[in-house]
Amino acid sequence: MPDNDKILKTLCKRLNHIAIAVPDVRAAAAVYKDAMGAETSEPTPVPNHGVTTVFVSMPGASIELLEPLGENSPIEKFLQKNPRGGIHHLCYEVDDIHAAREILRSKGIAPIGEISDGAHGTPVMFLHPRDFAGVLIELEQTHE
Amino acid sequence: MPDNDKILKTLCKRLNHIAIAVPDVRAAAAVYKDAMGAETSEPTPVPNHGVTTVFVSMPGASIELLEPLGENSPIEKFLQKNPRGGIHHLCYEVDDIHAAREILRSKGIAPIGEISDGAHGTPVMFLHPRDFAGVLIELEQTHE
Repeated sequence: MPDNDKILKTLCKRLNHIAIAVPDVRAAAAVYKDAMGAETSEPTPVPNHGVTTVFVSMPGASIELLEPLGENSPIEKFLQKNPRGGIHHLCYEVDDIHAAREILRSKGIAPIGEISDGAHGTPVMFLHPRDFAGVLIELEQTHE
Repeated sequence: MPDNDKILKTLCKRLNHIAIAVPDVRAAAAVYKDAMGAETSEPTPVPNHGVTTVFVSMPGASIELLEPLGENSPIEKFLQKNPRGGIHHLCYEVDDIHAAREILRSKGIAPIGEISDGAHGTPVMFLHPRDFAGVLIELEQTHE
């Protein structure tokens, strides 16, 4: 299925990270470090996304821990529903975020809001859980 | 940190799959196939785990879609809380599930229940979300 292959490569070059919302990013990072022996980054505030992040390197997967930062954090409601924390979204890498948006539009799928700058300063776009079997999806263009 | 490296390799050789609970596994598989162009397996009933599964091959990640099967499915409560579906657990591969259990026990972490046969007929064990920053974790030994 060459067409499907092309669509898949445009929408997902690879899994970039699994994002986990937690009430306390330092406590969560300590679990991954102490119980699992994983390497964790220093907590980094990302005010324009309303989160503080810690990256955890697991074999075969990168995990992004997210703690609410400031008022109206986009993960606040999720944590009210899941006070202990939980898996919040999946992030797929794309080469060309505008090409990805065009394909999705042709299938009647609109992103949430506009393309914006993500936690790594590269363009990102979010897809609504109602369009992807209950899962919030972030598409991240991995270069400018 | 050679000790931490050894612990990490014992507890997580690599991410095996991301499990997503959904109300209708066929509808969810159609989304991944039609919107994303991904390859999906045929739905497979796994009665001893109370689920019907579909595997989705995404670049860099395998996704397991889970639909409740029979009464008292272990994902029923999760779907009551998340009717549209959601990311249910992460599965890490291990070489030796008993060695993994010993390391976790030495850190005061007990698995949920006993080691049992998983969806692929190999031994699996589940770790409680309260011990892993809100995330249910499955460890799967990938050979007998």
